[in-house]
Formats: sequence, C-alpha cells, structure tokens
Amino acid sequence: MRTRVGIVGAGPAGLVLSLLLAERGIDSVVVEARGREEIERTMRAGVLEQGTVELLTDLGVGARALAEGARHEGVELRFDRRGHRIDFTGLTGRAVWLYPQHEVLKDLIAARLAAGADIRFGARDVALHDVTSDEPVISFTGADGAAVRLRCDVVAGCDGSAGVSRRTVPDGERTDYFRAYPFGWFGILAEAPRSSPELVYAHSERGFALISTRTPDVQRMYFQCAPDERPQDWSDDRIWAELNARVAGEDGFTLNEGRIVDKSVIAMRSYVCEPMRHGRLFLAGDAAHVVPPTGAKGLNLAVADVVVLARALERFFATGDTGSLEAYGPAAARRVWRAQHFSWWMTSMLHRDPDGSPFDLKRQLGELELVAGSTASATHLAEAYTGWPVER
Amino acid sequence: MRTRVGIVGAGPAGLVLSLLLAERGIDSVVVEARGREEIERTMRAGVLEQGTVELLTDLGVGARALAEGARHEGVELRFDRRGHRIDFTGLTGRAVWLYPQHEVLKDLIAARLAAGADIRFGARDVALHDVTSDEPVISFTGADGAAVRLRCDVVAGCDGSAGVSRRTVPDGERTDYFRAYPFGWFGILAEAPRSSPELVYAHSERGFALISTRTPDVQRMYFQCAPDERPQDWSDDRIWAELNARVAGEDGFTLNEGRIVDKSVIAMRSYVCEPMRHGRLFLAGDAAHVVPPTGAKGLNLAVADVVVLARALERFFATGDTGSLEAYGPAAARRVWRAQHFSWWMTSMLHRDPDGSPFDLKRQLGELELVAGSTASATHLAEAYTGWPVER
Repeated sequence: MRTRVGIVGAGPAGLVLSLLLAERGIDSVVVEARGREEIERTMRAGVLEQGTVELLTDLGVGARALAEGARHEGVELRFDRRGHRIDFTGLTGRAVWLYPQHEVLKDLIAARLAAGADIRFGARDVALHDVTSDEPVISFTGADGAAVRLRCDVVAGCDGSAGVSRRTVPDGERTDYFRAYPFGWFGILAEAPRSSPELVYAHSERGFALISTRTPDVQRMYFQCAPDERPQDWSDDRIWAELNARVAGEDGFTLNEGRIVDKSVIAMRSYVCEPMRHGRLFLAGDAAHVVPPTGAKGLNLAVADVVVLARALERFFATGDTGSLEAYGPAAARRVWRAQHFSWWMTSMLHRDPDGSPFDLKRQLGELELVAGSTASATHLAEAYTGWPVER
Repeated sequence: MRTRVGIVGAGPAGLVLSLLLAERGIDSVVVEARGREEIERTMRAGVLEQGTVELLTDLGVGARALAEGARHEGVELRFDRRGHRIDFTGLTGRAVWLYPQHEVLKDLIAARLAAGADIRFGARDVALHDVTSDEPVISFTGADGAAVRLRCDVVAGCDGSAGVSRRTVPDGERTDYFRAYPFGWFGILAEAPRSSPELVYAHSERGFALISTRTPDVQRMYFQCAPDERPQDWSDDRIWAELNARVAGEDGFTLNEGRIVDKSVIAMRSYVCEPMRHGRLFLAGDAAHVVPPTGAKGLNLAVADVVVLARALERFFATGDTGSLEAYGPAAARRVWRAQHFSWWMTSMLHRDPDGSPFDLKRQLGELELVAGSTASATHLAEAYTGWPVER
C-alpha cells in the first residue's frame, strides 16, 4: 500500500494536515491508534485563536465552531481582589472562540470521511521504518486484524507527546528542551450556571485559579495544586472553599457552585523537540512540543505547524526540491518559541511559585498592574492570546 | 537646633526633597556623612527618565542636564547576532537622557547652597532618635567637631541602602523583600570612541553585555559575570575577547577598543523595605529599595519617591492631619513595585541564568523576538524604560 503522505495521528494536526493536502491534490492516509468513538467522546477544552477559526472556516469545517462556539472578546485578569478586563477586540480587533477540541475533531473527521479520505482508526502496533530513506514506511495492524505496510514519500508525526513518532527520532539526533513546573492544575466540571461571561484568570496568594465554561449549565474550573495532588483527597466542600478563596474580592464577584461531576489533576510542562524533522519524518503539534495550558496555545500551535508543513510539502511534490522540506522546522519553530514564551509567561505571572519569595509575589502584582494598566502592555498580552497571523 | 524636615543623606532623594520643600516654604536641614568633594567626584552612571529631566528643569536645576546630557531616543536590543532598535520616541513620544548621577548632584548641591540651604556635609556618628514620637531627633557630630541634636517634625531617610535610616526601623516593624541574582556585572571604563550612538543591551549564549557611553572619548561597558568575579583576574585582552564574543553579529557591529582605565564588579540585587514609613521617619530612594541596574531605574525612582513625599508633607504641615503622612508609603510603593518588576524583567530577559536550561535560553530568544517584533510589545518596554508619569 502506498500514499504520498502518511499521517500518524488523527488529532488536530493530523486531520487539518490531511485536509490541507487534499486541497492541494496531495493524497494521504491517516493512521490512528484510537477508535473514532473514543476520539469523539474524550472531552477536551478548546480555545481557538481567531486565525484558527478563520482557517477552519476557509477549509469548510468552521461552521459549527462559529455557530455553537462562543466568541470571547476579552478575558478578566483577577488580582489584588479585583477584576481587570483585557479587551482583546478593542485592543487588537481580534477575538478567540471557546469550542471544545473534541468538537473540532468531530467536524474534521466528518468532513474528511465525507470527502472519501482514508483514515485507519483503531490501528495497533504502529511503527515507523526507514524514515531517513526516500520511502519511509508506517507498519500497523488494522482494526480488521490485517497487517499493513504503508509506503510513503514522507511521514507526518502528529501522534502527540506519547506517540511513536517522536520516539522514532534517535536520542542523538534531537534536542529535548524541557521545563517542568512545581505545580499542577486541579480541574473540575460542575453543574452550575456561569459565574462570568468571560474567562477569569485569577492570581492570589493561595495560587492561580481559572474560571472557564463548557456550556451554560456546566462549568470548567481549575486551581493550582501540588503536582502530585490526588483528586480523591478533595471533598466538594474543600474544592469550593479553595476556589472561592482564590477569586474572592472587593468587587462582588461570586462563584456559582453546583454538583461536581469530574475531578482530575493535570501536569504542567513545557517541551520542544528540535529539529522538528528527521529525514522524511516531520513532527507537528504535541509530537513536537507541549505547552502549559495557561496560554491556551496547544491546539492552535498544532494547526499553525501543519499550515507550514503543507506549504513545504506542496513545494516538495511540485519541484522535488528537498530544500523546501528543510525549511519546515525552522519556520514552524519561530512561532513555537513565541508561544512557548507566552505560555511560560502567563504561567509564571499568574501562579504562585512554591519556592518563591515574598518579593516574587509583590513583583507579580507590580507586573499585573503594569499589564492591566497600560494599553500597550495589555495589547502585548492580547496579541499573543488571540494569536499571531497564520499565513497559508 | 530645630527644623521641620530633617533629611538624612545628600543624594538625589535628599537633595531633590529639600528643593521641593523649599519651593513649598517648608524648611529642612540635610545631614550627610560624606564631604561635598567626595560626593561630587564619585563617578556614577545615570540614565534620567524624561519625567526626571522635566522635574529637574521645572525646579531650575535641569539646564546642564539638557545642555550637556545626551538625549537618547531609543536603545538597541541585540540578540541572535543582530541588533533590533527599540524606538522610544517613535513609540511613546518620550526619551531618556544620559547624564551621570554625580553631575546631577553637583547641580543640586550648587543650587541648594546658592539658595542658602543648610547642608551639613561630613557629619559623623549620625543617629536617629524618637522617630515614633512627634519630635524625632537626628544627632551627629558636625564637620567642626561640635555635637548637634537636630529636632524635627519629621525625618526623611535618604541615606541609601547602607545608611542608618533603614536600620533604625526595628526588624519586627518592617518586611524586607529581597532577591539576589546568581551573577554580577563586570564594568569597565575604556578610552575609546563610541561603538554605537545608543545603548546596546546584548543577549548572548555567553551572557549579557551592555555597551554604554560616558563621553565621546570614554566608554562604559559591562558584561555579566560570576557574582564573586575578581577584576584583577581579567587582563585587558581577556575582557575585550569576552565583550566581543557577546556582541558579535552578522550585521557588522564592531566594538571600538581602547585602554581600560577602570575595572570593577557590581552585585545585582532587588530589595524593597515596607512599610516605607516608621512613625515620623520616611524612607526614600535606595534607603527603601534597590533595583538591579538593567532597567536604569535607581535615580529615577528616588526622585519619584520624594515627589510623593513632598506632597504628603505639604498637606501635613498645612493641615496637621497625620493621615496624609500615612498615604506616602502605599502611593510611592505602587511605582516601586512596577519598577522592581521592570528591572527584574529586563534582567531575566537578557541575562543567562547559570542554573538555567537550554529551554530557558530558547524561550528568551522567543521573548526577545516578540518584544522587538511587535509594536505593542516594544511600546510596553519603551513606556517602562522612559518612565511612567510623575505627578507633582
């Protein structure tokens, strides 16, 4: 079996890439370890940059995001017991959309399948071979039990941070840039009405909290916790007390409480693998880099990667010039490092460092006052949050 | 002997305060441990914010700063082997002046003495008494050997980080916010022509360097070093090799070398004492806070403090209301913490953390690209560097 581009992983990077390639008349096959149902029911939060929504719309898969997603024209930074709105649209003319990642995936899968795309869900034992040759191979066992060897011109590794793609790049051939944070996020889903029309990023002496939303009736909230915190150690009452303590203020902000239907703890880390290419294997999305969620950049960065990759592959298949393949990594990495900085910055500005000093806490408050108090500084944040332009 | 405001220290804070008080008809006496000659010949760098120059001009002591100082309308950020200009005046309409601190002091001392001000240079054994009473006392031995007890309504502690004022506040009555940096600055004075029309702040894998200037023929340069580096271990050749390695680039930047006439190592630290008041003792300038020099904020912050203090004292003497005295610290501290953040930020963005990881280095480059590449982000830096408005 043969295709031009073998895509490992049916996440945002892999599916958008297959769409961008199809638009250019380049055939691809997507190989995905999970089943379609599993992908579509694994709930994941999603903040889409305006450029991401525009791209999806352009590609014919943005209608539901626009109709059912919520356009957010700003966020609230909460510190010193008061809210301070960052007016994205007033400052930059741009906005973001809250639209869960699994809904984006549903839209992409439906569109690709309707167009006759070849997506192999439920592939087992996925492995990559000969990636430094001119004909790399993806081997796997299909959902029907048959062994498949998929010969490709190039392989796109879009299978996330735990996938086989990154591991296929030998240790000596890549640099792993890594940063762990000395805290995690304790996340809950609660059956409650919204507490705020926009996302609330709260700094407090007790640590960070994020008040987000899923639907009018179900809310997503997080608070900074120890990285090894155990969800079962937290009663509902304790959770509400902690969240309330972090967002309490002098401006009458009230947290709407309700039944907690999900509790989990997520790790916070920053990671980049460079180069993002090894021979004919190209890493994109979480396979190449991970950001802490504070900057809401993960999905957007995956999409931006494959826009650059599709351009490089188009040139390669049109001209046979391998130089265009070499351009992918450095071009994608420029945005990656800006986004890594932004994600680190939002994280370090808003979280309490357990090893930090009283100086650090007061300095953070000085920083937050600066950011909220100056149009230029607020625009600096708003530009990065709503996303830098994506050139197709 | 009696005065309304006893001022300890004839540095920028003390002298500007005595001038601001005189303008309001409030008498003061300045008590200074050093001799006038020592103060005037201790060379210290100085970057004056536009607001500081405007204030000095307003007070009749800015003529020489305007005539002999150099107006700088921007700085160069150097990273990734290229210079990136931050156009202060284009971005904010504002500028800074390079005018050494000891020249500012010469102007202030001359003006104060010409106006008949009482400045006691060479005072020994300065001590503060009864600062929590309504009549604090400054005791000292005058240059003529006579013991003096100066009774005051209030005392302004403007005697720097090593002075008696801060030490007079009992440990239990103040919070010391402190941060040490794991590096220092190796500074040189060199007889050489200028290398650049504006200051160059250079980020490199080897660490930070700053190319500044004193006169057309004498240049001031610094490079990040270990905090315990010994000047005598560095030959001129080694110094030039290190500086060149840090500013080298692809844009033809050339460092003009020359005879090195001074070598020294300075420590980098951040410090704030709060509250900035203890009874009738008010701390201002370096007595209350210290910033690393990367943000060029030291002198400007001292001047901003005493503008707030003079306003508070004017109200107090006009009304007798001690509430106006309580307002000083919190009002001054707002600017202090913004400046502390800015100084920390410039330092951490441009220096190589010896305990940092390759991730940190790449993130810094992402940050520098963001700052230099966006008008809003560059304005964020330019606003802070040229200084926030000073309201008299």
